[in-house]
Amino acid sequence: MSNITKQYFEQLDKQDSLAPLRQEFSLPESILYFNGNSLGAMPRGMTQRLQDFAEQEWGQQIVRGWVTQGWYQMPQRVGAKIASLIGAAADEVIVSDTTSVNIYKLAIAALDLKPERRKIITTSDIFPTDIYVLQGVSNTLPDRAELKMVESDQIIDAIDEQTALLVLSPVNYKTGELFDMAAVTAEAQKRGAMMLWDLSHSCGAHQVDLSGIGADFAVGCGYKFLNGGPGAPAYLYVAKRWQSEIQQPLTGWKGHANPFAMSPDYEPAEGITRMLCGTHPVIAMTCLEQAVDLFTTVDMAQVEIKSRQMGDLFIALAEQQCKEYGVTLLSPKESAKRGSQVSFQHAEGYAIVQALIAKNVICDFRAPDVVRFGITPLYQKYQDVWDAVAILTEILATESWQQQPSSPTSAVT
Amino acid sequence: MSNITKQYFEQLDKQDSLAPLRQEFSLPESILYFNGNSLGAMPRGMTQRLQDFAEQEWGQQIVRGWVTQGWYQMPQRVGAKIASLIGAAADEVIVSDTTSVNIYKLAIAALDLKPERRKIITTSDIFPTDIYVLQGVSNTLPDRAELKMVESDQIIDAIDEQTALLVLSPVNYKTGELFDMAAVTAEAQKRGAMMLWDLSHSCGAHQVDLSGIGADFAVGCGYKFLNGGPGAPAYLYVAKRWQSEIQQPLTGWKGHANPFAMSPDYEPAEGITRMLCGTHPVIAMTCLEQAVDLFTTVDMAQVEIKSRQMGDLFIALAEQQCKEYGVTLLSPKESAKRGSQVSFQHAEGYAIVQALIAKNVICDFRAPDVVRFGITPLYQKYQDVWDAVAILTEILATESWQQQPSSPTSAVT
Repeated sequence: MSNITKQYFEQLDKQDSLAPLRQEFSLPESILYFNGNSLGAMPRGMTQRLQDFAEQEWGQQIVRGWVTQGWYQMPQRVGAKIASLIGAAADEVIVSDTTSVNIYKLAIAALDLKPERRKIITTSDIFPTDIYVLQGVSNTLPDRAELKMVESDQIIDAIDEQTALLVLSPVNYKTGELFDMAAVTAEAQKRGAMMLWDLSHSCGAHQVDLSGIGADFAVGCGYKFLNGGPGAPAYLYVAKRWQSEIQQPLTGWKGHANPFAMSPDYEPAEGITRMLCGTHPVIAMTCLEQAVDLFTTVDMAQVEIKSRQMGDLFIALAEQQCKEYGVTLLSPKESAKRGSQVSFQHAEGYAIVQALIAKNVICDFRAPDVVRFGITPLYQKYQDVWDAVAILTEILATESWQQQPSSPTSAVT
Repeated sequence: MSNITKQYFEQLDKQDSLAPLRQEFSLPESILYFNGNSLGAMPRGMTQRLQDFAEQEWGQQIVRGWVTQGWYQMPQRVGAKIASLIGAAADEVIVSDTTSVNIYKLAIAALDLKPERRKIITTSDIFPTDIYVLQGVSNTLPDRAELKMVESDQIIDAIDEQTALLVLSPVNYKTGELFDMAAVTAEAQKRGAMMLWDLSHSCGAHQVDLSGIGADFAVGCGYKFLNGGPGAPAYLYVAKRWQSEIQQPLTGWKGHANPFAMSPDYEPAEGITRMLCGTHPVIAMTCLEQAVDLFTTVDMAQVEIKSRQMGDLFIALAEQQCKEYGVTLLSPKESAKRGSQVSFQHAEGYAIVQALIAKNVICDFRAPDVVRFGITPLYQKYQDVWDAVAILTEILATESWQQQPSSPTSAVT
């Protein structure tokens, strides 16, 4: 790529069909926000929505709100909206609990569906809570479950006739590297295993087609690219073909076929509703719904195109401007292999992130040396990339660590 | 009790030291709210708190709010506030997940702590989700757990040398009948079992002294007497003496000793923090904290006194005014044996509750024939009792079911 100019970024913003969406978000003027892959920015309508919730719903209706305000059906209703973003049918997704709790439910369900198999496989670089929960599953059921962690490139070889479940994130949260979801799902199923995708770093960020790839199970959080607010409720997906068979361990009253009969025997509800457990936090789900509604006018293909282009430009610009300062590209250079983030490595990564944040470029550090920039096309401008790289370059050029360049191989590539 | 007059209720309100608290709640003028045992009324400060949360916290700080706004420590901080209402030390309570999920965690933890025992005992009339979750535990661990349900008056006899855990609610959610928490706890422990109390119908309603009775475990919800909002997060209690030993199955990253090290091995945090699992819904916890803060100026002894008196008056007034209409008292008449509710039985209970709600007396029906009035001294007036019984009497006197009186034994007693 030839020399890139600021004018080029300005031109891209002018042509960007997603640009008007930025106005739908509350973003402080002073910051460049590259951390929507950790916590999404707040949709601007949230303040009014919360005021309405307090004054007109909870404050006026109190307990009647469960019926009059549609609180009761929120897990199904918001789930259906999320389903449309991940290529699932409306009745295949439900909002419930946290990602961690939902992984637990589905992992034990998978062991029940594959009683002759005991192995659960994941990668050692998946988001750690996925590992911890799967360790919890094997601690709960030492005779029925065994967790095996492998490197990402060993995953296919690791699936054997003992494998009940494969748990993967399509996006490596550190590097941004993408799995080929269709190919891995097909391979897992060919070998008789179930496939569980953790979409926390995918849903709302790039195109996902669970029906198209014939996925079994999926989970994901509501607070990253979905912008549902800190700790927003999570969701889970169960393919229609498993819904009548599936049983899950956390059998609470909201998953009961008839909760208000208050019968002393648990009877699972029909369909995806049986995956619920306790009473859902209505206000947190209200925020998530408000945020997900912003996606209704959005074409995820357009989001993915803008994300890839912003990532490509970030990489090219970093190569152009801070090649000499020992910053190594960690993410795949090819956008088709990269999720909605760009990660670099630098020995002083932690200090660099602190310096960036001090200059209002909000990004994050991941141990031991990763500087991570999330890309969120709904509310970021192309110019944000230009400005962020300019500040990164300025920091690298003025701070003390420029005296210790890394090895030649660690230049931005 | 001699004939009670409306003037007597007015007088009680004038003398009520808790009366000013009513102004701290948003209660529509038109209704008489007797359902705070299902969903508490909204604290009036909530609208402003939510606006501040949106505009100043999430909207301005975005991801930085985890540190700058104290979101990260909310489970511990709000837990400590709830601890003060149930006689626990600040570091013995943490806010997390739902009541159902927390029961699952603690039930499996109890089985681990009592490896030579497999029986879990509860009552057949406990709130059904408790039963469903315990059925989930025994389904998950068929070789290690067996659920036994008994009648409330059989509970002590049922505890044997095979009993790992006893799960009870101090308050029967239908009848309002109270267990003697101290006596039952002592008996369970004497027989070598662990004791788990579900405080959902107790915390914020009557005095609970977990330290005083030497309790092992407890759970409870945030949306009934605590007024934390629909589906507010739940809490759990683990006595200090168990905290270094306890292990729980839902090992998510927030329970890790060092979540941001992102190590691939789960290592439980010190103390109560290891009971956490996934990321908590910050906005729902913000509402709960705002609500719990209203209790800081309140003496729970005063709350209990007012609750008992309101219940006694409800019963006496119903006896005085609607004895002839086939309404039977289901709750204990003696206030020391009754939680913060009064329940009646009537063959047409469902229709009566619908008629009451239509006349803006918000109470609820519990199958098959229970008309349930929750008592919430923080925001109810004594006069509310007078007015509710007057409307109940009017309904009974005019509707068609007065033609079918129940048997003589079903009069209000």
